[in-house]
Amino acid sequence: MVYTRPLARLIEHFQHLPGIGPKSAQRLALHILNRPEDEVASLAQALIDAKKQVGQCQECGHLSAEPVCEICRAPNRDGTMICVVSDSRDLIALEKTREYKGKYHVLGGLISPIDGIGPEQLNIQALVRRVSQQKAAEVILAINPSVEGETTTLYIGHLLKPFTRVTRIAFGLPMGGDLEYADEVTLARALEGRRDLE
Amino acid sequence: MVYTRPLARLIEHFQHLPGIGPKSAQRLALHILNRPEDEVASLAQALIDAKKQVGQCQECGHLSAEPVCEICRAPNRDGTMICVVSDSRDLIALEKTREYKGKYHVLGGLISPIDGIGPEQLNIQALVRRVSQQKAAEVILAINPSVEGETTTLYIGHLLKPFTRVTRIAFGLPMGGDLEYADEVTLARALEGRRDLE
Repeated sequence: MVYTRPLARLIEHFQHLPGIGPKSAQRLALHILNRPEDEVASLAQALIDAKKQVGQCQECGHLSAEPVCEICRAPNRDGTMICVVSDSRDLIALEKTREYKGKYHVLGGLISPIDGIGPEQLNIQALVRRVSQQKAAEVILAINPSVEGETTTLYIGHLLKPFTRVTRIAFGLPMGGDLEYADEVTLARALEGRRDLE
Repeated sequence: MVYTRPLARLIEHFQHLPGIGPKSAQRLALHILNRPEDEVASLAQALIDAKKQVGQCQECGHLSAEPVCEICRAPNRDGTMICVVSDSRDLIALEKTREYKGKYHVLGGLISPIDGIGPEQLNIQALVRRVSQQKAAEVILAINPSVEGETTTLYIGHLLKPFTRVTRIAFGLPMGGDLEYADEVTLARALEGRRDLE
């Protein structure tokens, strides 16, 4: 055995993390051995705290350490706009643009019959309730353009259109993208989504 | 704030690890939230255990959870051969070749006057003691060919040559390497280290 037991165990744990191979796991573990004991204890505590304290917002389903998340509690955010995303990762990506000042709704996945995920497994009922209670003026669907994403978008659109305006984010050529190298589906979408020059 | 507090703290901790950028740190932290609580607790414990339990072998300076490491205790390893390395990382790399059946000695660094590291800061006195006590037949210096490495190699060679045979590992073209693309120093070393065809 090349590694002493506690070290081997730590390396194995690191290897189970996404994107961490054997070499990186070894590097991380040896790094840990070189850090002060209180720093390592603090990392260990951060792991436990994050797992224990972070749950889902009762309102929107976003990750939150409080019953209701900061975004839902924010008084300066427009409650009549609800942006629907598949998971918190997508919400975080949208938040980083600093463009959107409405609220969110996190579905917790996409409709995928192959994986046995139907609408009832997702956070959709609460969305319908919010839309009617908050008298939402617009629901923006910000869902990946995959097969599951399209299904989910159509399903939710169908469900909400009687109550409110439903839009979806634009698909087209990414900024810095090159027409010549774009795939046909993206180009077709870009054409389809063309707008009048202002 | 995009992340809820405990999540933000965990992401920050991950970002301090080597080779982990902001995106990877977020990915790791969200992965942790999706794992079962006992698995996260087990990772936290592994961190604390590794830091608390792993120290240095009294004999050779290698990482060990016991006072004397497994390699030093192994009865089937040749105690008359001592391979000197800069740190445990290099020892582990050599062990993985499964070629070497002697013992090791870990210096814990290299002589580097610029960084204020002299021979007395390194695990060299213990090496001299081992060489004389164990009547070592050969000391192999397996030290990187950097400026500090050369200094350290020369220093230890000078120190030990009166007592035993001192060798160093070969430098030359790496396996799968290409003469055309090798740098001049490597090629010069490869020429210098040429051997008779067997």
